[in-house]
Amino acid sequence: MDKTFRIAPSILSANFAKLGEEIENVIKSGTDIVHFDVMDNHYVPNLTIGPLVCDAIRDLSHNVGALIDVHLMVKPVDRIIPDFAKAGADIITFHPEASDHIDRSLALVRDSGCKSGLVFNPATPLHYLDHVMDKVDMILLMSVNPGFGGQKFIPETLNKLKAARARIDAYYEKTGRQIWLEVDGGVNANNIAEIAKAGADTFVAGSAIFGSPNESDANRYDTVVAAMRASLATV
Amino acid sequence: MDKTFRIAPSILSANFAKLGEEIENVIKSGTDIVHFDVMDNHYVPNLTIGPLVCDAIRDLSHNVGALIDVHLMVKPVDRIIPDFAKAGADIITFHPEASDHIDRSLALVRDSGCKSGLVFNPATPLHYLDHVMDKVDMILLMSVNPGFGGQKFIPETLNKLKAARARIDAYYEKTGRQIWLEVDGGVNANNIAEIAKAGADTFVAGSAIFGSPNESDANRYDTVVAAMRASLATV
Amino acid sequence: MDKTFRIAPSILSANFAKLGEEIENVIKSGTDIVHFDVMDNHYVPNLTIGPLVCDAIRDLSHNVGALIDVHLMVKPVDRIIPDFAKAGADIITFHPEASDHIDRSLALVRDSGCKSGLVFNPATPLHYLDHVMDKVDMILLMSVNPGFGGQKFIPETLNKLKAARARIDAYYEKTGRQIWLEVDGGVNANNIAEIAKAGADTFVAGSAIFGSPNESDANRYDTVVAAMRASLATV
Amino acid sequence: MDKTFRIAPSILSANFAKLGEEIENVIKSGTDIVHFDVMDNHYVPNLTIGPLVCDAIRDLSHNVGALIDVHLMVKPVDRIIPDFAKAGADIITFHPEASDHIDRSLALVRDSGCKSGLVFNPATPLHYLDHVMDKVDMILLMSVNPGFGGQKFIPETLNKLKAARARIDAYYEKTGRQIWLEVDGGVNANNIAEIAKAGADTFVAGSAIFGSPNESDANRYDTVVAAMRASLATV
Amino acid sequence: MDKTFRIAPSILSANFAKLGEEIENVIKSGTDIVHFDVMDNHYVPNLTIGPLVCDAIRDLSHNVGALIDVHLMVKPVDRIIPDFAKAGADIITFHPEASDHIDRSLALVRDSGCKSGLVFNPATPLHYLDHVMDKVDMILLMSVNPGFGGQKFIPETLNKLKAARARIDAYYEKTGRQIWLEVDGGVNANNIAEIAKAGADTFVAGSAIFGSPNESDANRYDTVVAAMRASLATV
Amino acid sequence: MDKTFRIAPSILSANFAKLGEEIENVIKSGTDIVHFDVMDNHYVPNLTIGPLVCDAIRDLSHNVGALIDVHLMVKPVDRIIPDFAKAGADIITFHPEASDHIDRSLALVRDSGCKSGLVFNPATPLHYLDHVMDKVDMILLMSVNPGFGGQKFIPETLNKLKAARARIDAYYEKTGRQIWLEVDGGVNANNIAEIAKAGADTFVAGSAIFGSPNESDANRYDTVVAAMRASLATV
Repeated sequence: MDKTFRIAPSILSANFAKLGEEIENVIKSGTDIVHFDVMDNHYVPNLTIGPLVCDAIRDLSHNVGALIDVHLMVKPVDRIIPDFAKAGADIITFHPEASDHIDRSLALVRDSGCKSGLVFNPATPLHYLDHVMDKVDMILLMSVNPGFGGQKFIPETLNKLKAARARIDAYYEKTGRQIWLEVDGGVNANNIAEIAKAGADTFVAGSAIFGSPNESDANRYDTVVAAMRASLATV
Repeated sequence: MDKTFRIAPSILSANFAKLGEEIENVIKSGTDIVHFDVMDNHYVPNLTIGPLVCDAIRDLSHNVGALIDVHLMVKPVDRIIPDFAKAGADIITFHPEASDHIDRSLALVRDSGCKSGLVFNPATPLHYLDHVMDKVDMILLMSVNPGFGGQKFIPETLNKLKAARARIDAYYEKTGRQIWLEVDGGVNANNIAEIAKAGADTFVAGSAIFGSPNESDANRYDTVVAAMRASLATV
Repeated sequence: MDKTFRIAPSILSANFAKLGEEIENVIKSGTDIVHFDVMDNHYVPNLTIGPLVCDAIRDLSHNVGALIDVHLMVKPVDRIIPDFAKAGADIITFHPEASDHIDRSLALVRDSGCKSGLVFNPATPLHYLDHVMDKVDMILLMSVNPGFGGQKFIPETLNKLKAARARIDAYYEKTGRQIWLEVDGGVNANNIAEIAKAGADTFVAGSAIFGSPNESDANRYDTVVAAMRASLATV
Repeated sequence: MDKTFRIAPSILSANFAKLGEEIENVIKSGTDIVHFDVMDNHYVPNLTIGPLVCDAIRDLSHNVGALIDVHLMVKPVDRIIPDFAKAGADIITFHPEASDHIDRSLALVRDSGCKSGLVFNPATPLHYLDHVMDKVDMILLMSVNPGFGGQKFIPETLNKLKAARARIDAYYEKTGRQIWLEVDGGVNANNIAEIAKAGADTFVAGSAIFGSPNESDANRYDTVVAAMRASLATV
Repeated sequence: MDKTFRIAPSILSANFAKLGEEIENVIKSGTDIVHFDVMDNHYVPNLTIGPLVCDAIRDLSHNVGALIDVHLMVKPVDRIIPDFAKAGADIITFHPEASDHIDRSLALVRDSGCKSGLVFNPATPLHYLDHVMDKVDMILLMSVNPGFGGQKFIPETLNKLKAARARIDAYYEKTGRQIWLEVDGGVNANNIAEIAKAGADTFVAGSAIFGSPNESDANRYDTVVAAMRASLATV
Repeated sequence: MDKTFRIAPSILSANFAKLGEEIENVIKSGTDIVHFDVMDNHYVPNLTIGPLVCDAIRDLSHNVGALIDVHLMVKPVDRIIPDFAKAGADIITFHPEASDHIDRSLALVRDSGCKSGLVFNPATPLHYLDHVMDKVDMILLMSVNPGFGGQKFIPETLNKLKAARARIDAYYEKTGRQIWLEVDGGVNANNIAEIAKAGADTFVAGSAIFGSPNESDANRYDTVVAAMRASLATV
């Protein structure tokens, strides 16, 4: 297991009236990835942002060295995947329940020039990975139910992270190829170390970061990101 | 017919990295309404922006005196109507084909504290208005097909505007209540006068405005909006 | 126009723990039709009762001389129509928006041995009748939005009743065949006369009847039904 | 009204084991158009044939001078329209209820290089034509319910044909452009003259033709087609 | 494994004209749970009874000491769960295929004040339990296909019961918390002992009970329930 | 493992203008099964052929000793299963994701007089087999994504074939009943031996056969089929 940890601020919690500035600040504060949550009011009961917003932030995100990580909470997924690829997405993940043809959708993501991944809802079993490890660059485990507000980190996620980590490590043994393991939901400076110990290497955080600005920080979010990094350093 | 003309810039064509600034400029340039296009990748093949973006711009829009006019290109509509009302929408319109219970959805908009309206696709007949004039504050006629790019103003819309205007005027005769008549799609300084003559009083314009900034204008869009106003003054 | 008025208590407002007794009482109190509201939690946001309940009350309803009038608030309708016909329905009505093949669904109702009808939501235009008058035995106008609670009689229904009555009368002129005109929603002893004057001949009432039992009545609902009849007598 | 009558054999009634031969025979017998019925088991309860079959018969159909007239009984329609255009369709018609964006779907048919049309189920009102006459090359009235077997010509279709003819003639007066008026369902040599008198100029016939081969005819269907032509000559 | 056996008569087989009386009799005859089967004509091809019927029987069921166990054969489930909680349900179970967000739906059941459970169709694998044992109070295995009539107990259910029992026992070992294991379909006095031996502790029976009344029994169903109890006593 | 190998030409690649002749040729060339691919433009993005085409080829297929193996790429499946049984299908397979009631659909296939089977998309895990081995006569593993063109044999299928073979062999040990293991997608003379070694016994091939006619062969496809047989003989 490679000990690089990536922090991925979810911009749903940023101020949308000045999104460009928010992204520049949060990345300069020491984070790595712009996590971009797409909801369609069908797969989840909310509607957020689409390709046009992705396109608006692509250059400024890439200029500060961030990847754009698009998490599709939409169903179906095939029609919109190329739109996001054209709009600058670097990684596109989707839920296996949201495609009738998972292998094909994964291939479509890669054929569009992006890294591909599958997202697992808290109750979704990991068996969807059985025959597609070759086509997956990232596995995202939801530690809350996507699209619903006010939830805490679901403890069972720790067991699930261990199981996913075991699959990834076994695959790495066999092939030498790394697959990232991301976690999303209720992650903060207090629990991030424990989550990393369970096997995650990429950490989505929304209100935990954007809800804790420090106006005296050079980049507004330096303090809160530093706290996360300090916790991760203990792993 | 009241000769007030309202211009409603569609913010889908604005720069999303600095949306707040764009809105302030465009309203100060002489427009009246923030037109907010919501697409869900189901009713139309695109996904745009949702309540969270509306909430982010509500105060700054209202501070410069603009109404927020939310056009739902989503199906179904009832679940998301209260979300937009809470997020600051002043007007909410939807397509009659997108609700099984149109009268109820119109009532839901009003009960949520907003003005309500119906939107007609280019081919949609007007008789959906037959029994709900009492519950409608605005009628929006699409002069292009919503959600698809690269279309021009559909000429038949002029006939349809006249028919809608006749219904509105007859209703006004009977009740004394004004209903706004909005048009959306391919409107620009060249055709806006003709469209106004056909009966429209509220004009959505996207790329016609945001695609013609004048960096030497005080508010960036003064010139282009002035050209529209000049055309309207000839009506 | 034939001056027979029919009252159709909606059993959704009856006590379901002793449904047989309720039906016998309400029919003996002077009503004519058991109105049976079927909701599927898809076409409307509620789920009520199905063919099995219809079957349980068929004999006792028919024994006291009542017709069973099944109003389908379900979508689609074709699969369940024969189930209700087998379960004893005398009349089956459905919403035109709930069938892709309205003419075929109407024929299916009749081929199953029942009277057929179309139901119009408050906003639904009457044009769906243009080419199927021959296949319709009853027209039901909703005066509230079906499936949602706490609504009052929608005044526009009076205009719509007049328009439906005109279509029915013109058809009767031409063919000599009677079509019933039913109204459902917010009907009570206070407004029933005005509704009848607008053209209705069949009146659904739920809580207005079952919510006003008189324990000293021989059949529990004699008083309230008598009040309705008295109003109707003034028409 | 132009007095050219076109006969369009529906190949669903042909022998699919030797489809090429069947088409050559039926066209040489005096018919004009290969009517191609596409059902998807969703919009109608049957599944028939798709673009691949169209492609297989395109050259031989065109070689004998026939147009291929594709009637889509599918929902939605936009994804499959270009497939049929590529597979050789000359005309593509669809049901207005099967597209959320009728004007756009009509434009898509034309942009794909085909003639476009709308199909009306027996109960579907003609108002869907109100604002799209400019985009329609053919109007098809169903005289049975599509996708269901064993039905007879619905008499009300004669009234509907007259109403559609009136719209077409009025449009022709104004624009000089011809729109074809097709009828499909239960048409045969006995009723075809009456149907033509009501305004139809293009006649789909399936089993009426393919179910009446005459093995001594040069082209197998000469006799039956001649009988239809003879009836039409009386109009 | 705790050796308490619970019998849950399915009221779909009761007489709906006098449902209150039926429930009082069957519970007094020695059963424990009112099993309430909700079908929506979408997830299964039948429509049965909804919250309003539940509400009508809540007090009389609770007065005779019965729990109300609502089995949702509907899709989706989230909108209707609170309705049943308000209508008196004690347990609410649903099918994992019927919710996009299983963990969230289970939480919603509990937050509404009820015990929660998952139902497995005959072919549904048990892996849906992998990460939600903490949120499940009952597991229901279908031993027939829900919503279809005339089926016998599927023998493979015995193997599946053993597998489910093993999961429950392992979980109990670790946590000390009991999860009930219910079986539904084709259960009767002849096979109930074998089913109990395979691991079930809660037994749904419909026609096996309500189809065998004994008019000389004090509570109509004493004899048939006693026969079941006698079989269970041999386990 | 029984060493009989069956070759199943997929007629989607045949010439549809003379389908009967094509089938007779390909079977006489040494193949065993007519593989019949049904797509509905919903479960997969294509629409192919339905029961009516099956019916047209049933007698000639059976006359040359071929089974008709219908692969349903449709959703849902229950309505159309009896149609194909009546149209002459010998085997009917469907995708587990395409039925809410898999066990029931399998039973429906058998009750209609056909052999039944499940089809697994490349990413679909095998545990859908856990509780239905008794009801399955054939297992079909897709080695490409069905309904999308231009794909190659997916290598992971070899691992999946081994896993499926292990399940089948274990089941055979216990019951003595044979289940066929079919593979579909990118199979040709070059890779068929390796695929057979991984456990397949039935091989679908479309363009690999119909795209390689040899006009000097007695039955047009003798050469290409012989090449496949030769490869299989090395297993």
